[in-house]
Amino acid sequence: MVRILRFNIEERGFMGTGELIFRGELNGRRKGRSYEDKMMQSENRNEQDRAWIKKLVPEMEPPSLNDNTADADRLIKGIRKVLPGKEILLDFSLVREIPSILREYDYQVETILFEDHGQWHVAGILPGALDSPLYGLAVDLGSSTILVRLLDLSSKAVIEETSFHNPQIKIGSDILTRIHYADQNGGLQELRSMVNDRLNQELHTLCRRHGIDAGSIGGMAVAGNTTMTHLFLGLNPHWLCREPYIPVINSPSLIKAHELDLDIQAGAPVLVFPNVGSYFGGDLIAGILAAGMNHREEISILVDVGTNAEVVIGNNDWLMACAGAAGPALEGGVAGMGMMAGPGVIDRVTIDRETGEFHIRTIADQDPVGICGSGLIDLVAQLFLTGMIDIRGKFVPRRCGNRLREQDGIRELVVVAPEKSGTGKPLTLAQTDINGLIRSKAAMFTILTTITNTVGVPFSLIEHFFIAGTFGSYINPRSAITIGMIPDLPVETYVPLGNTSLEGATMSLLSDEARKDIFRIRDRITYLELNVNQEFMNFFSAAKFIPHTDKSIFPSVRPN
Amino acid sequence: MVRILRFNIEERGFMGTGELIFRGELNGRRKGRSYEDKMMQSENRNEQDRAWIKKLVPEMEPPSLNDNTADADRLIKGIRKVLPGKEILLDFSLVREIPSILREYDYQVETILFEDHGQWHVAGILPGALDSPLYGLAVDLGSSTILVRLLDLSSKAVIEETSFHNPQIKIGSDILTRIHYADQNGGLQELRSMVNDRLNQELHTLCRRHGIDAGSIGGMAVAGNTTMTHLFLGLNPHWLCREPYIPVINSPSLIKAHELDLDIQAGAPVLVFPNVGSYFGGDLIAGILAAGMNHREEISILVDVGTNAEVVIGNNDWLMACAGAAGPALEGGVAGMGMMAGPGVIDRVTIDRETGEFHIRTIADQDPVGICGSGLIDLVAQLFLTGMIDIRGKFVPRRCGNRLREQDGIRELVVVAPEKSGTGKPLTLAQTDINGLIRSKAAMFTILTTITNTVGVPFSLIEHFFIAGTFGSYINPRSAITIGMIPDLPVETYVPLGNTSLEGATMSLLSDEARKDIFRIRDRITYLELNVNQEFMNFFSAAKFIPHTDKSIFPSVRPN
Repeated sequence: MVRILRFNIEERGFMGTGELIFRGELNGRRKGRSYEDKMMQSENRNEQDRAWIKKLVPEMEPPSLNDNTADADRLIKGIRKVLPGKEILLDFSLVREIPSILREYDYQVETILFEDHGQWHVAGILPGALDSPLYGLAVDLGSSTILVRLLDLSSKAVIEETSFHNPQIKIGSDILTRIHYADQNGGLQELRSMVNDRLNQELHTLCRRHGIDAGSIGGMAVAGNTTMTHLFLGLNPHWLCREPYIPVINSPSLIKAHELDLDIQAGAPVLVFPNVGSYFGGDLIAGILAAGMNHREEISILVDVGTNAEVVIGNNDWLMACAGAAGPALEGGVAGMGMMAGPGVIDRVTIDRETGEFHIRTIADQDPVGICGSGLIDLVAQLFLTGMIDIRGKFVPRRCGNRLREQDGIRELVVVAPEKSGTGKPLTLAQTDINGLIRSKAAMFTILTTITNTVGVPFSLIEHFFIAGTFGSYINPRSAITIGMIPDLPVETYVPLGNTSLEGATMSLLSDEARKDIFRIRDRITYLELNVNQEFMNFFSAAKFIPHTDKSIFPSVRPN
Repeated sequence: MVRILRFNIEERGFMGTGELIFRGELNGRRKGRSYEDKMMQSENRNEQDRAWIKKLVPEMEPPSLNDNTADADRLIKGIRKVLPGKEILLDFSLVREIPSILREYDYQVETILFEDHGQWHVAGILPGALDSPLYGLAVDLGSSTILVRLLDLSSKAVIEETSFHNPQIKIGSDILTRIHYADQNGGLQELRSMVNDRLNQELHTLCRRHGIDAGSIGGMAVAGNTTMTHLFLGLNPHWLCREPYIPVINSPSLIKAHELDLDIQAGAPVLVFPNVGSYFGGDLIAGILAAGMNHREEISILVDVGTNAEVVIGNNDWLMACAGAAGPALEGGVAGMGMMAGPGVIDRVTIDRETGEFHIRTIADQDPVGICGSGLIDLVAQLFLTGMIDIRGKFVPRRCGNRLREQDGIRELVVVAPEKSGTGKPLTLAQTDINGLIRSKAAMFTILTTITNTVGVPFSLIEHFFIAGTFGSYINPRSAITIGMIPDLPVETYVPLGNTSLEGATMSLLSDEARKDIFRIRDRITYLELNVNQEFMNFFSAAKFIPHTDKSIFPSVRPN
């Protein structure tokens, strides 16, 4: 199943006022591979990996004068016959409907059960005749884009994946605006409903398309950053952005769907990923889970570039995380050429070192209309390798030739001439665009340097460098190394993971072990507060060159 | 604390169309004694008897940059410090309010906790400064009268007891009318709200009167018959009165107060007594608990006369129960003299064997206006002992003298002459009234004979014969033996227990052992379906005489 997913930007970049763009396509192959890898890994590490949400047909007979057990108790007895020795709990909200459903289907029903704290809870009762699969929804609750994956919990197959812009963007594209809005009268409820209503609308569409009754969706797992999670739960994020930055809750227990007004089976569990703090959300815990870092003996790094650049380092013994404001520009903040992803957006650039000719690849092979993040990093790396910019990122006029021009006192390079452009106007890269990218990549490299220094692990000991998100899927690691954004390791060290939030949410729905891993990860992780002190600023200053002040750190980068 | 409690009747009697009355006063001494007895017994049998609802002050510090644990998680950690090793669960419905309450009271709060299935649940959070006791409500959910007892759960003291007519009487005084009404559109909800609203109103009154915040009521226990329990829970009782008589639920799990729209602490547990079937409700399980039958080595009998006569026999090893339609008339169905309990109602009668003079005692010592159940049994016993009625219960004209007259072809006895009556009219007892009482007492004795025969225990082996309810509190056992309603055992065998429903509910709120006993009783009890077969009819016919066809069964009864 190949679907084009459109992403909105996470945030406006700090480098300019223009639109930020990047390519948001997840193709089926990549998604599939990542998914299967993870599942195989999960199966290898624990053969007893079992479902914690399941369907079950209770063994029961219709009542008679010889057995006048009440309907609800009869149902529980019937479940116990199939699950002997287990404690079975029935939520009171289900009781009222039991007599009619049991009689309507002559005591031939199916139940949806889920496990929590060693007890099995009845989530819902379905007509036994249906014999339909049990479904689940994995949700990546992004601040700009929300992804929903419909899963068959029995076969573990992905039925469909879909996405939509987070409707809260109407209130504000950045998180802080939403946090402030939540403080207004009715604001919190409005923000919550926006996502909630849209999510319900989406799941009904999915159900219609696949002929599924929403009642046979027996569970949901949701991973998002701490603020998004708060808004989703209707919790005021007020204190998240105020010292000492206290969430309302770190680890929500399983919540029943009806408590969140979600239109799946009313008693179905909603697993909301825990956060470790204001700046370390459930999305990153899902990322660690998806990368399997917590089960590897060797040390690996996970980088997730969203609103912040979030970095985790560790193995099956320890985990350390930090986050810093390196994100937005890395996603491709470009003032002049910016636009939303779509046909004609540049995602790859190479420049012939001999002829200086630009080879440009665009989405859908159409005439170029803009550039996305991976395209931008490629472009700047190529400009550096061909000597068109120097180690400070400044244009070198004699190398740029007539591509270079000046507009309002700012130099800019014509990447695509007007006659070859899909817009009829030239596509240009301004000096300020490059400066912004350099600041971001320097921040990224400084964060990586700081966290590895803190744990005393040199880059050379990193076995895997996982890159989450769209950023990870489309970046050319060779180009990112060239501009000095990521360490000069063999390119095979870099592993794009796609959407790890969605992946982690999926795993947690399918496997009890994965679900438990979430809380093990949460308990094991140490959060490193980044102090922007003198040492940090020294690292940052040294990293504001291409690839770095100290060329010996990037031996593989050899410009013309 | 002595309060006069007014009871309404349970049902109209099957003996006539008139009003049924009985005296409904519970005086403080009786209530107190019964209560203390039970509590002492409970303490003796298990010294570790502990509370399952309690208040606790979590040990926590306000957040800082060094400890940015979320508010909800901080609260749970703080509780765990005081309850180490316990699993603490926080209902999601509480989470939203936590940040404001913690900050408002500078992280000095109290929590209400309750235990369920080995886990402790947070029921509510209170300002720490209050330091008020934790309260509970025990409720006897009668079909005619609802009793509410406000308890201090910490000191185990009864703060106040209050009662009101079940507002559902407006729909119908008998249970079947209500069951049918529940099937009408909106009927079930209406019946539920009637009791619910009135209960909320009553608890607010109690709170106001004692200066209590309703939020410091941390638990409720409710015992009622199966139909009343269904209506209270908003469950349709439709199938209760249709073969094979199936309740919606036998054993509800603990329900949070807000799920039942009860205005106590929102997350407080509501313990609804389980039923064993349509005819064996939570009120009788509460009765067994209150009588302590389930802990006694010796065999005892419990009789509860309500809508039905319910009988339990057993000990700490086994319990058997049955129920039959012997009730209404035993409560004092009297066509001619019937009226609601109140001042001037006759509750004791003696007739001088020498002079034939009637000695009549009335409530509040006022001029007689009617008769209640205990008065009726006394009267008929005295009429028999003085030869004014024969063993068939027929008036003996020569003994009755000018007290006897005929009205519309039916003989009746003038009990109180018009000039001595509070109504200015004579108070009379008709032959049909006596016939009805005899049928009821015969049914009662037949049920007792049948159940003891079934378990093979002769009456002589019964150590205690507990009589629950108002009926039990006011009956003169000597008179009841005289008319052959209860076995001819030493009068000290008969133990009035007062309102055992309310008593059992109280015990279950105060003690974890008592709460567990409820379910042990439920599991241990065998329900005997009374077959109205030839043997039963033979017993019944033999019992339709005063005291019995076989006089040797009642050696102590010696009429003039």
